[in-house]
Amino acid sequence: MTESKGISSAVVAVGDELLIGETLDGNGSWLSKKLTNLGTPVTGRWVTGDDPVAIKQTIMTALEKSELVIVTGGLGPTIDDLTRPSVAELFGLKLIVNQSLVDQLRSRFSTIGYEMLPVRNLVQAEVPEGAIIIPNCEGTAPGLIIENEGKSVVLLPGVPHEMQSMFDRSVTEYINKRFQSRLDPILQRTFNTSGIPESLLAEELDKDISRFPSDVSVAFLPGLQGVSLRLTAPFSGGQGLGSLDFCENIIETTLAPYCYSVGKKSIMDSLAECLLMDKKCFAVGESCTGGLISKHITDLPGSSRYFKGGIVAYDVATKSGVLGIDKSVIEEKGVVSEEVAALMAERITEVMKADFGIGLTGIAGPDGGTKDNPVGTICYAVAGHDQVISFRKIFQGNRESIRERAAQAALFSLFRILTNRQD
Amino acid sequence: MTESKGISSAVVAVGDELLIGETLDGNGSWLSKKLTNLGTPVTGRWVTGDDPVAIKQTIMTALEKSELVIVTGGLGPTIDDLTRPSVAELFGLKLIVNQSLVDQLRSRFSTIGYEMLPVRNLVQAEVPEGAIIIPNCEGTAPGLIIENEGKSVVLLPGVPHEMQSMFDRSVTEYINKRFQSRLDPILQRTFNTSGIPESLLAEELDKDISRFPSDVSVAFLPGLQGVSLRLTAPFSGGQGLGSLDFCENIIETTLAPYCYSVGKKSIMDSLAECLLMDKKCFAVGESCTGGLISKHITDLPGSSRYFKGGIVAYDVATKSGVLGIDKSVIEEKGVVSEEVAALMAERITEVMKADFGIGLTGIAGPDGGTKDNPVGTICYAVAGHDQVISFRKIFQGNRESIRERAAQAALFSLFRILTNRQD
Repeated sequence: MTESKGISSAVVAVGDELLIGETLDGNGSWLSKKLTNLGTPVTGRWVTGDDPVAIKQTIMTALEKSELVIVTGGLGPTIDDLTRPSVAELFGLKLIVNQSLVDQLRSRFSTIGYEMLPVRNLVQAEVPEGAIIIPNCEGTAPGLIIENEGKSVVLLPGVPHEMQSMFDRSVTEYINKRFQSRLDPILQRTFNTSGIPESLLAEELDKDISRFPSDVSVAFLPGLQGVSLRLTAPFSGGQGLGSLDFCENIIETTLAPYCYSVGKKSIMDSLAECLLMDKKCFAVGESCTGGLISKHITDLPGSSRYFKGGIVAYDVATKSGVLGIDKSVIEEKGVVSEEVAALMAERITEVMKADFGIGLTGIAGPDGGTKDNPVGTICYAVAGHDQVISFRKIFQGNRESIRERAAQAALFSLFRILTNRQD
Repeated sequence: MTESKGISSAVVAVGDELLIGETLDGNGSWLSKKLTNLGTPVTGRWVTGDDPVAIKQTIMTALEKSELVIVTGGLGPTIDDLTRPSVAELFGLKLIVNQSLVDQLRSRFSTIGYEMLPVRNLVQAEVPEGAIIIPNCEGTAPGLIIENEGKSVVLLPGVPHEMQSMFDRSVTEYINKRFQSRLDPILQRTFNTSGIPESLLAEELDKDISRFPSDVSVAFLPGLQGVSLRLTAPFSGGQGLGSLDFCENIIETTLAPYCYSVGKKSIMDSLAECLLMDKKCFAVGESCTGGLISKHITDLPGSSRYFKGGIVAYDVATKSGVLGIDKSVIEEKGVVSEEVAALMAERITEVMKADFGIGLTGIAGPDGGTKDNPVGTICYAVAGHDQVISFRKIFQGNRESIRERAAQAALFSLFRILTNRQD
């Protein structure tokens, strides 16, 4: 990614734990996304150890190409935290104790029951002269910004939630102010779909997309939760916003049967909204997903308002016993059949005294496939509103993917019924 | 991490998708761990875009410090795959079509039904003169090793499973052969424990650890699955192996009540082994974990041999209704109580006709906590062998952590009973 116009940035992550592969460099990735979206593309990323020479060399190299360098890690209170003194030395700046930081540290320790400030933590109040201090509301290491010859080096701690909240609260504002006229932020709008493969969705959208303005680019992002369609446009003084609205208008009708949310909402978030609005509750009888559907539902706090519970009927005896599925149906139609799924959905609705019930049975693999029911065959059904709708699908992938896709499909089918979009 | 003796390495990951933060640099992290363990510590890691100038500069910088540079990504067939030509240019090497690679590509495409080799893929058979070819059994991009002035540059594809299998099959052997006398591999042995917090485990092991030989270093790694104790020693011609055995001997008795596995096995793997050996099966009645315990169990293929099924009793009505818990016990003792957990364990054992049953009820938060039962309070029980053992614990963290810790604790308590280690 070469950018000759505008402003470019670089990211340096410091820490021996990264170099031995004990920790993933999630900070580097997170910052890359944020900086790209802010309109300052990242030209390079580095991982370096807790070594003053390496830290200085890396920051110097990064500054050769970029006017903005974000450094994370190495701001802690122990002897292996070397970013602060290394950067001070690099720019020939003295480290000066900042009294207001000392007071903040002292008060922080006193609230968690320590009368005295540990001597070790004092170094965290030492600031290279002239540096801008970024407050850290969630930890002891303040962030620092050093401006030198028109370039900016931003130091942030390595603890992800501290680093992220400091970036969002303070660094974003700093970047916007300092580089304003040269930034071109990226706008994104993501439409999440289920129940249609990537290639078919692309085909259905072909005509719509051919009408998109040239500043909008399109990405299809397939995943276990379905296919997301991401539209991207440069902000360009507001023009991008208009372009995205225009595109959304074009694709709305085509997407309607598949789209369950825009942005970051999961199928469960959307389903929860519908259920709460309609004051309905549901229950799940699942076989090969083995608790996964219930787990996804109860991941959300407050799910007891619309989720009664579930039965994991992992063997045939449990299906006929606890769920009370007619054995003759299982024998005649097979345990993996739309008929059994439909009975599971009906029975779980009754047993749990729910408004709706999901039933699911199938073969998650890697073993157990047959000619008629290969690995990945999933039958699922939704009961409620005096009807049962059942489905039979074959999902691709390994055991984990098949289970995730099956759970998603079953939840999406309930969502479609609740939003009156079933076929 | 500065290493003056021995041999050091560096890792370069190539790809615009890394620089915009769309993809995590998992390859860099994976390679760092492998190289560290092989005995060639990583001194630096770089992420660079699909840009020939940046690729060349980065590899040159990496070679200044390290004799071994591993580059991943950019070996594909499309115009944005630039690693191969960039490296050839860097070392002034011609790209020459390798006939045996062409034949391999042709046969690969013919087995998936393509008569002709796509022209695009032909570039993947172009090799810098003198390069060693690393076969890729899982994809079309071969790996390459270029030796120059006593240093080695290894090019691997960016697709993780291809890169990993090529590293394990071929690159490890190459490194061992080429740098043999200067490598000092790292040996690690990890003991996974549950049911004891990090600080207490450290305290209990204090005396044992004081007897460890000086070449063994110790790390406590707390996680949602419990605390792992990792011992590390340099191989040093076999001496490290003896040191680790010696240490294992020392800690064995202290660890016994908590340790469920050595190495990579999860609590479910260990539990599955016990259940299969004893020919026993079990079932789960869970409330606030909402299907998570059943999900973990059924993550393993073949779990139907020892798992009968589960009931997610997410509200009180389901606990009394489907599970048949005496309402008066719920009223008297409260729904989050050892008594209710014990009844859930007994009832699920009966209902599912299992040998053992786990019952669990609690408050996963973030709401619903009371003075007596703060968020994180979990009561769980194991029934079977004509007895019920129940527990009450308070777990820390957010909803997800509390649920994971609770599931782990409940599964561990069944494991202890099966291995006759209960109190």
